[in-house]
Amino acid sequence: MSDTSTSGSGYVEPEYQRDTKYIEDRITADGRDGWPVEAGRYRLIAARACPWANRTIIVRRLLGLEQAISMGLCGPTHDERSWTFDLDPGGRDPVLGYERLQEAYFARDPEYPKGITVPAVVDVPTKAVVTNNFPQITLDFSTEWTAHHRDGAPDLYPEPLRDEMDEVMQRIYTEVNNGVYRCGFSGSQRAYDKSYERLFTALDWLEERLTDRRFLMGDTITEADVRLFTTLARFDAVYHGHFKCNRQKLTEFRALWGYARDLFQTPGFGDTTDFPQIKEHYYVVHADINPTQIIPAGPDTSVWLTPHGREQLGGSPFGDGTPPGPVAEGERVPEGHGPGGIPHR
Amino acid sequence: MSDTSTSGSGYVEPEYQRDTKYIEDRITADGRDGWPVEAGRYRLIAARACPWANRTIIVRRLLGLEQAISMGLCGPTHDERSWTFDLDPGGRDPVLGYERLQEAYFARDPEYPKGITVPAVVDVPTKAVVTNNFPQITLDFSTEWTAHHRDGAPDLYPEPLRDEMDEVMQRIYTEVNNGVYRCGFSGSQRAYDKSYERLFTALDWLEERLTDRRFLMGDTITEADVRLFTTLARFDAVYHGHFKCNRQKLTEFRALWGYARDLFQTPGFGDTTDFPQIKEHYYVVHADINPTQIIPAGPDTSVWLTPHGREQLGGSPFGDGTPPGPVAEGERVPEGHGPGGIPHR
Repeated sequence: MSDTSTSGSGYVEPEYQRDTKYIEDRITADGRDGWPVEAGRYRLIAARACPWANRTIIVRRLLGLEQAISMGLCGPTHDERSWTFDLDPGGRDPVLGYERLQEAYFARDPEYPKGITVPAVVDVPTKAVVTNNFPQITLDFSTEWTAHHRDGAPDLYPEPLRDEMDEVMQRIYTEVNNGVYRCGFSGSQRAYDKSYERLFTALDWLEERLTDRRFLMGDTITEADVRLFTTLARFDAVYHGHFKCNRQKLTEFRALWGYARDLFQTPGFGDTTDFPQIKEHYYVVHADINPTQIIPAGPDTSVWLTPHGREQLGGSPFGDGTPPGPVAEGERVPEGHGPGGIPHR
Repeated sequence: MSDTSTSGSGYVEPEYQRDTKYIEDRITADGRDGWPVEAGRYRLIAARACPWANRTIIVRRLLGLEQAISMGLCGPTHDERSWTFDLDPGGRDPVLGYERLQEAYFARDPEYPKGITVPAVVDVPTKAVVTNNFPQITLDFSTEWTAHHRDGAPDLYPEPLRDEMDEVMQRIYTEVNNGVYRCGFSGSQRAYDKSYERLFTALDWLEERLTDRRFLMGDTITEADVRLFTTLARFDAVYHGHFKCNRQKLTEFRALWGYARDLFQTPGFGDTTDFPQIKEHYYVVHADINPTQIIPAGPDTSVWLTPHGREQLGGSPFGDGTPPGPVAEGERVPEGHGPGGIPHR
């Protein structure tokens, strides 16, 4: 999760540790935590820049939950205190009326002591955060919100695969999703060297796994692919240089690069990816490792649209289901922010 | 030139300007500046880390001047005041007895007001710097020291090519050699964006020029190749990430990457290149743009030894001459510091 504590002081510890204590209430079909599934009641607050929030944007679109759960988007940069709604007219979220996401956390707990993080799901009537527990949010979209899924929505967390999926996703989380941050926020050469080894050991494992599998769990996309994708989409644009994950670029992995483009070109993935916001977020917010806050102009993102050849492995992203339709008018990535678009801003 | 003023405060100016006022005395065959060519009298002080100094190490070896001009090497890092002889036993240059290169500058001028730079040529009897005017030093090795060249030494500055060479070298200097620094030390996004465009415009020009030419001036190596090589050797290891020169890696240029490997595999080039020292220099000395001073472990340098296929273009590096023999015992790049060696240190 991209949070203010991470950005403010992540690298002073020899080995970076992610703060993983979240507000863990769940929105469920049976409402056992007091938060029943209910169309129109909740608002997802995300940021396109953030890989953890990007997951929720993708899953919401894959499942067709746009009508049931509205979405507000914070801008790519934030200060020590909070993500903000600076992209919205007047700098306020049009539904919650907030300028800063912090207000939704304080509505939940006036003394909220921890980082103000995206994604967060907010209860619109009380304007208070229900949960910011990102790994649970997407799984609950898949398993608790089924009554509101679109026709043809994929099953992103299939029962028979869950044991294996949980293992795969756990390794991807510790070694890759968080592994890039561990490299970038290392407080010593030794910690960095160890983190680099761990990261590329895991990427080599994934390279092998994806050499003869179209997707991580087989012939169709699952939550595991969503989780890996948002890190891969940021790899060459940010992690390779900014976090020193530079044994090679993503484009220099054969299977992983084909796989990443296959996903990118699947509705829900590339069409929710905003490269300029991604780059601006990391290079501006992490002034402790990039004091000039200058945003690199490269690399060229048009390569994401090149043929990937992964159809040869069989399978198809949605299996018996269908892809989602076009992105809703108000939710499109700004023109020029897609692959091959303007370098930044 | 890598100098202390560069490393200390380069990026506060919106556009980086290299200080180019040097001690411009020349050592000539006719001794008109008071410094006649004389075997055993002068000592070249270089640092493998520094691209400007690396040129002198290459040219001295290509021409076989090792016996005529001795060489001292500073370590890869330095403080605000000076490069140091920290690699030597007891931390002192065995010929000059100095701990810091600064002492040789002060022997020339006790109030020497400028950056302490490598390369510098020192008059051994007086232990004072004769010149640190790096673009002239290598040309004078080629044209003034001919009496001491080895048999079969190449003519690196051929008379008939000088006009064109001077133009090519000037463009390479302003746009590439210095262009990477202009990117890395930009003081604003605007200055960086302009610098990035200039750099890659020049690299595209070189890519085209080298598509049907084996070397920059044709069929054999010249000083122009030496000058381009030391920047290319540092490109993926340092400039791509550290200086944000990241439109693409050198390995992603077809002709330039073939050309760079062709040179690297030619005696005098790769065998004077020390990747760990290069990386340590930039990432440790420039704490203003890399405050953690952590040195990236990548990229893999073993790719420098892969076949380049440039023989197809005809020509040969030394033309009618011969390559230099093995590197002298005491002057070898440390074991493990060549391509595919230890990641750093």
